Amino acid sequence: PLQDFCVADNSSHVFVNGFVCKDPKEVTAEDFFLAAKLDMPRDTKMSKVGSIVTLLNVMRIPGLNTLGISLARIDYAPLGENPPHTHPRASEILTVLEGTLYVGFVTSNPDNKLFWKVLNKGDVFVFPQGLIHFQFNPNPYKPAVAIAGLSSQNPGAITIANAVFGSKPPISDDVLAKAFQVEKKTVDWLQAQFWAR
Amino acid sequence: PLQDFCVADNSSHVFVNGFVCKDPKEVTAEDFFLAAKLDMPRDTKMSKVGSIVTLLNVMRIPGLNTLGISLARIDYAPLGENPPHTHPRASEILTVLEGTLYVGFVTSNPDNKLFWKVLNKGDVFVFPQGLIHFQFNPNPYKPAVAIAGLSSQNPGAITIANAVFGSKPPISDDVLAKAFQVEKKTVDWLQAQFWAR
Amino acid sequence: PLQDFCVADNSSHVFVNGFVCKDPKEVTAEDFFLAAKLDMPRDTKMSKVGSIVTLLNVMRIPGLNTLGISLARIDYAPLGENPPHTHPRASEILTVLEGTLYVGFVTSNPDNKLFWKVLNKGDVFVFPQGLIHFQFNPNPYKPAVAIAGLSSQNPGAITIANAVFGSKPPISDDVLAKAFQVEKKTVDWLQAQFWAR
Amino acid sequence: PLQDFCVADNSSHVFVNGFVCKDPKEVTAEDFFLAAKLDMPRDTKMSKVGSIVTLLNVMRIPGLNTLGISLARIDYAPLGENPPHTHPRASEILTVLEGTLYVGFVTSNPDNKLFWKVLNKGDVFVFPQGLIHFQFNPNPYKPAVAIAGLSSQNPGAITIANAVFGSKPPISDDVLAKAFQVEKKTVDWLQAQFWAR
Amino acid sequence: PLQDFCVADNSSHVFVNGFVCKDPKEVTAEDFFLAAKLDMPRDTKMSKVGSIVTLLNVMRIPGLNTLGISLARIDYAPLGENPPHTHPRASEILTVLEGTLYVGFVTSNPDNKLFWKVLNKGDVFVFPQGLIHFQFNPNPYKPAVAIAGLSSQNPGAITIANAVFGSKPPISDDVLAKAFQVEKKTVDWLQAQFWAR
Amino acid sequence: PLQDFCVADNSSHVFVNGFVCKDPKEVTAEDFFLAAKLDMPRDTKMSKVGSIVTLLNVMRIPGLNTLGISLARIDYAPLGENPPHTHPRASEILTVLEGTLYVGFVTSNPDNKLFWKVLNKGDVFVFPQGLIHFQFNPNPYKPAVAIAGLSSQNPGAITIANAVFGSKPPISDDVLAKAFQVEKKTVDWLQAQFWAR
Repeated sequence: PLQDFCVADNSSHVFVNGFVCKDPKEVTAEDFFLAAKLDMPRDTKMSKVGSIVTLLNVMRIPGLNTLGISLARIDYAPLGENPPHTHPRASEILTVLEGTLYVGFVTSNPDNKLFWKVLNKGDVFVFPQGLIHFQFNPNPYKPAVAIAGLSSQNPGAITIANAVFGSKPPISDDVLAKAFQVEKKTVDWLQAQFWAR
Repeated sequence: PLQDFCVADNSSHVFVNGFVCKDPKEVTAEDFFLAAKLDMPRDTKMSKVGSIVTLLNVMRIPGLNTLGISLARIDYAPLGENPPHTHPRASEILTVLEGTLYVGFVTSNPDNKLFWKVLNKGDVFVFPQGLIHFQFNPNPYKPAVAIAGLSSQNPGAITIANAVFGSKPPISDDVLAKAFQVEKKTVDWLQAQFWAR
Repeated sequence: PLQDFCVADNSSHVFVNGFVCKDPKEVTAEDFFLAAKLDMPRDTKMSKVGSIVTLLNVMRIPGLNTLGISLARIDYAPLGENPPHTHPRASEILTVLEGTLYVGFVTSNPDNKLFWKVLNKGDVFVFPQGLIHFQFNPNPYKPAVAIAGLSSQNPGAITIANAVFGSKPPISDDVLAKAFQVEKKTVDWLQAQFWAR
Repeated sequence: PLQDFCVADNSSHVFVNGFVCKDPKEVTAEDFFLAAKLDMPRDTKMSKVGSIVTLLNVMRIPGLNTLGISLARIDYAPLGENPPHTHPRASEILTVLEGTLYVGFVTSNPDNKLFWKVLNKGDVFVFPQGLIHFQFNPNPYKPAVAIAGLSSQNPGAITIANAVFGSKPPISDDVLAKAFQVEKKTVDWLQAQFWAR
Repeated sequence: PLQDFCVADNSSHVFVNGFVCKDPKEVTAEDFFLAAKLDMPRDTKMSKVGSIVTLLNVMRIPGLNTLGISLARIDYAPLGENPPHTHPRASEILTVLEGTLYVGFVTSNPDNKLFWKVLNKGDVFVFPQGLIHFQFNPNPYKPAVAIAGLSSQNPGAITIANAVFGSKPPISDDVLAKAFQVEKKTVDWLQAQFWAR
Repeated sequence: PLQDFCVADNSSHVFVNGFVCKDPKEVTAEDFFLAAKLDMPRDTKMSKVGSIVTLLNVMRIPGLNTLGISLARIDYAPLGENPPHTHPRASEILTVLEGTLYVGFVTSNPDNKLFWKVLNKGDVFVFPQGLIHFQFNPNPYKPAVAIAGLSSQNPGAITIANAVFGSKPPISDDVLAKAFQVEKKTVDWLQAQFWAR
C-alpha cells in the first residue's frame, strides 16, 4: 500500500496491476464490509467433488485492494474434498471449525514430497505459496467446515484436474497422453468429463 | 519466499530479518501444524479490557516463516474489547463467529476519519495496514468470538494505551501531558495504571 | 520503479496505488524540484504542541512518485514537541540542526520497551517503521530544528492523541474509557479537546 | 539485493530465505561463471517425456543469489515435451533455437482458458508466473531446442503429473479418484507409473 | 503480479508505474508472442561500437507487463563490444551462442573491483543489478552472439559514455572536466563525438 | 522489516542479504544513534573533486538494517563537485543548507535527457534510482552544503569515472577506447590518473 487505502473501483474501464481506486472522498465503511454469512453452511450438493469455497477476495470486498489478504470459508460434504490445486499468488493458513480433514501439500521437483496431516476441530495447518495442496473430509457421515486466511487480495486458484483436462480450448491430447503416461483415449475421456463442467 | 518453504529454526543463535530455517531435510508436517484449539472459548476474566487474542504467528507455527500470513481467534467478554491498536506489518480481515462487534479504524492525518460498522455473526470487515483499529462487544450479556487473517507471519501489535502510558521505561510525562493536552498528574496516574500491567 | 520515473499527475481523475504519471514527454526538471525554503524557521505559535512539520512528500514534489523517499524539516518551539505518532509506511532517520531533542520510540507488544536518547546538534537517530515515536525540545528558552529522511514518498503520519480522541466521528467513549482505564467523562473531556482541533 | 552481490555459500550450515553469502572478500569471477555447455545438445533418450531441462539457477551458479534471474536450455526429442508444470516463483520468456514447438499456458479458475501458439525458430513466448504451461515438439523426425529466462534465481518447478501421482508418500487414492473423476484403480495404476520414476 | 496477467495497453493515455492493462477479455495468445527472429544475425555495421542489442521488453511484448523478465540477443562484430553500461532495474544472465567474449562488471565504491572472464561458446556469466558491465569480442575475424535474460520487463540501459558525454542538453564541461580529471577542451571534443550520435 | 527491528551485527561471521541481527535482548538505544557531527563542516582539501560525502548507512548505524533509509551530508569546496555517479539501490532527495548547487540527472537510453536545475539555499531536488546524477558548486569563493535522504540502508555509490577508469584490475583499454571513441593512449592516461587514487 502507498496510501491508507485504495478501494477497488470495479466500475472503472481502466485496468491496472490490481485495481484502480475509487475517489478516496467517496469511500465509506461499506467498502470494507460484507454481510458474507460466513457462519452459514452452504449446500455442497451441486459440487461434483463435494465442496464449496466461499472466497472473500478483492472482487467481493473492494476495500481489500492493495492490502495483501483475503479470507475463505470452505464447506465439505461427507467424503467431499477441495481437490488438488495451487494458489499462484498466496500462502494459506487454515483452521477446522467442524469435522475432520485429511490435508496435505506436495513440494516441487525433484522430491515431490507429500506433507500431510489429519486435522480435527480447532487444529491449524499451513500451505506454502504456489504448492499443490488439498483437503479431504474422510468422514462418510458428517460434513466439515474450515476457515482460511490467504496472503493476497487476489490469490487465484488453479484446480489441477480442471486446468489440465478442462481448459478451453483443450490442451492437445498428444501432450497430455505423454505427460500422464496414458493412452490418448483415456485423455479424451477425461477431457470430456471436465469439459462438461 | 525464495524456496518452497523456510521453516523457522527457533533454536538458532543466528538472528536475521525473519528467522533462519531448519535444515529442509529435517522438516516434517508437524512444522506446519498446530493443535491450536481455535474452536475452544478462552477465559477472558484475567483481561482488564475483556478480550483474549490467540495469534498463530511464526513464533507459534514455524512453518509460517517467509509465507506472509497468520491467523487469530479473538474472544470478547460481554462489553469486552480489543482496544485501539495497530499492526505495523499487516492488514487484517475479520469475521464474527459469535455475537456482535462494533468495529472501526481511523485514517492518518490530517483527516483522522473513523470508518466504523456494527458486525453480526457471519459478517466480515477489513482493517488496512498500520491504521489504528478496535473491536468492542456492545452486548452486556453475551460474549463474542471472531477469526481474523493477517497479511504477515509476524504482524506485530501495538496496543496504543499500553505503548504510550505503559512503556518501560515510561515516556516523560512532559511529553505525554502536552500530547494529550492534560495535566502531568493525570499522565502520572495513567502511567501507574499501565505500568502495573 | 518500473521506469526511470513516473511523475505524479495530480490533476488526473484516475486513482491508483500511488499516483498515475504525467506523460513522460511533458516532464521537466520542475517536477523534481521545490523551492521549499527548508532553510527558513517556521512559526510554531499556532501549534498547540509547539512544533511544525514541513513534509516534502509526493503531494508536494510530484517527481517523488514511485521513488520511496521523502524529506521533512521539523521546527520545535521551546518545550515544543512532535507528539507520539507512527508512520504506517516508513522508517525515519533524523538529524538535529539546532538545539536539543529528547527522542524515543516504543516497541510492540508485549514488551513496549522505550528506546530513548537526548540528541544534540549534529546527532542522528533512527525510528523503525510503524513504531510509536516522538521528539521533545526540553529547552525552555531555545527552539530546535531537525531534518529527517523517510523511506516512502507518502509515509503517512498518525498522531496518536488526535487519531484516538479526535477522530471524525468520535470513537465511542465506552471503547476509549475501557482502553485507557479511565472514566467516560474523562474521555468526553479529552474528545472535546481534540475535536476542536 | 541489499549489496552489490551476495554469492551463495553452499557449504554453510546456516539456512535462510535464499542462501547465506560467502565472505565478499573471497568472491571471485568464478562465482558468476559456469562452463555450462549450453551450446551442446543433450541426450533426451533417458527421459520418458522426451525432454531435458538444463536449469542454471542459484544452486548451479552461486553468484545468482538475490539477483532474481536464471536461465534454462531445454532439449526436446522428436515428439518430446516439457510436460504441464508450474514455476511457483517465476515468470518465463522462451525463444526457440531449433525446430518447432506447440506451447501454451492455462489461466486460473474459473475460466481455465488456454493461450497457445506454434513457435518456429527465432520466435518468443511468455509464460506468466504460477500458471500451468507446457512445450511440445510436434515434429516426429527432428529435435527442438529452446532457451528461456526465468524471473527468479530459484524458480522451482512442479511437474503436475509427477507431483499429483508420484508424490512420496502418495496422496490417498480417494482424493485423486474424486479429483480426476476416475476410479480408484485408475489412480492406483497412474501412481504406480510415477512412483517408479 | 496481482492477477494472472496484465497485458500492457500501449494505446492508453493513462500512464502508471509500469503500464495499464488491456481489458483481460480482449487478451489473446498474440500478446505473449513475438516473431522476433532471434535466430537471425543482425547487421552490426551501423554501430560505432560494433554491436546490436535486440531487447524483448514490455514495449515489444505487451504480455511481459508485471512479469519481471525480459530477453535479449546481442550481436557483436569482430572486435565489437557492448560498451560499459548499467541496467538500473535488472540483473542479467548471459550465455554465448557463437564466438568468444571478454566480459566483466565493476563493483561500487570504494573498491571498484573488476570481475572479468573470457567466455567461450556455451559459457554463462552473471551481471548483478545496477553495476557497470560490458562485453567485448576480442576476435578480429569472427562475430559473436549472446542471449541474455534480465530480471525486469523494462530493465533500462544506461550506456555510460553516451549518458555522460552525449546527454541532451549536455552536462556542463566544468563538471565533466573535474570528474574525469581532463581539460575542458577534451570534454568538449568528447561531447561533440557523442552529441552527433 | 519482518520484526520491529533487526540491528546489524557487524561482528558476525555469517553473511546474508543485508546483515544478520544482534540478539534483540542486547539491543540498546545506542544502536539507533550516532554522534555524527552532521552540523560540522568537513575539510574538502584532500578531495580531487572538491567534495566530501558523509553517508550514514547501515555500516555506520547498525539500527538502520532492514529499514530502507539512510542520510548523507555533502560538503562542497568552491567549484567543488560530487561527480557523476549512480546509486544502484536508492533514490535520493537533497536539500541545500548553504550555498548554490548546479544539479542534474540523465535518463536512460535512448534519450539520455538531462534534467538540471540551479539550487539555492533551502531548495530541494530529487534523483531517481539508478540514474547518473551530479552536484556542482559553481561559486568560486564560497563552499556549499547539502543534506540528502536515500531510500536504502545501503544505497551503494558508483562514481562513473572511478569505476570505468580506475577499476582494479583495469578494464582493457581496447574496450574503453571504443566505448569513449578515443585513442588507447588517451585511455591509458586516464587510467593512470584514476589508478593512482
